[in-house]
Amino acid sequence: MKNIITISREYGSGGYEIGQRAAEALGFKFYDKELIAQIAEKLLVSEAYMRSTEDKLIRRNIFREVFPTLSGNDNADADFIFAQQGKFIVDLAEKGNCVIAGRRADYYLRDNPNALHLFFYADMDFKIERICRTENCSEEEAARKISDMDKRRKTSYEYVTGRKWADRHNYDRMICTSSLGLQKCVDEIVNLIKE
Amino acid sequence: MKNIITISREYGSGGYEIGQRAAEALGFKFYDKELIAQIAEKLLVSEAYMRSTEDKLIRRNIFREVFPTLSGNDNADADFIFAQQGKFIVDLAEKGNCVIAGRRADYYLRDNPNALHLFFYADMDFKIERICRTENCSEEEAARKISDMDKRRKTSYEYVTGRKWADRHNYDRMICTSSLGLQKCVDEIVNLIKE
Repeated sequence: MKNIITISREYGSGGYEIGQRAAEALGFKFYDKELIAQIAEKLLVSEAYMRSTEDKLIRRNIFREVFPTLSGNDNADADFIFAQQGKFIVDLAEKGNCVIAGRRADYYLRDNPNALHLFFYADMDFKIERICRTENCSEEEAARKISDMDKRRKTSYEYVTGRKWADRHNYDRMICTSSLGLQKCVDEIVNLIKE
Repeated sequence: MKNIITISREYGSGGYEIGQRAAEALGFKFYDKELIAQIAEKLLVSEAYMRSTEDKLIRRNIFREVFPTLSGNDNADADFIFAQQGKFIVDLAEKGNCVIAGRRADYYLRDNPNALHLFFYADMDFKIERICRTENCSEEEAARKISDMDKRRKTSYEYVTGRKWADRHNYDRMICTSSLGLQKCVDEIVNLIKE
């Protein structure tokens, strides 16, 4: 019986909104930034600190892709935070009946038989139109944001998990949001859980 | 209104059977080898000839991956057959209400707004168990068959289409058959088409 949903997604695909709507339809809790805030409390560090550490790590790893000969292991802070996030997500899933967006939850819950792992993606035109509308920016800015955000997600996902980002074998379903629309995706998820 | 379904899949995932069952549930026609036979008739060549030409091409392309400096364009026969198959699939889709398994139908119908493109995959254990049972072979043989067949599919797909095999952006849904079972996949497809 699946009663935990993890949401992974391309930036701009609408996967986050689908997760929220599905949680509402199912009467499940929805976790995302709230989750980060709770972890931050546990760690007794501010959310801002956690974010800045993670940002630094991602920038450094992108830099290392370009200059692979540079090395050194000064990622200890970020490693600690990632590990705490993982433990927290595993604890959270114990209660079931929840949707968790992002935070590599698919990885931390990979052996949880009650978890349904979903990945959302979309056509580039759909994502650009969506970002322009929700973030009130130009098409050029939207395209750049999409590229930047997915690169960041990929980098941190691959750094922490050692798995390939968006690899189908890590998910139960990969769903294109632009082909049939968001509501159809919500209905599909509800059906997968309910039946 | 989607009334054409294309089925792409990993060998052993059960995608073919799901396609058959979904076609039955929807009252749609199901095309696969029958399709090849019809094309063969059009071409006035035997199915065996078509198969052997395609096999030769695939072997040659695998060979070329290993020895990329060898070249020469002696694929004219196969190119002709692939082109005929593509035209035939486009004609077939004109009538709608059908499920087409394999034959790179997702590529030929990429601009058809009535087509729903599905890709099925599964855990390796699930695929091996399935192949052992349906083809009455050992686990080692099953694992080898899975690897060989997917390599053949990938090679011919990428040769003909210039696209990456199993790239999510070519599909509306990528569905893991082993996580919720085949019948759930059939119901899901029927719901996607019907609602």
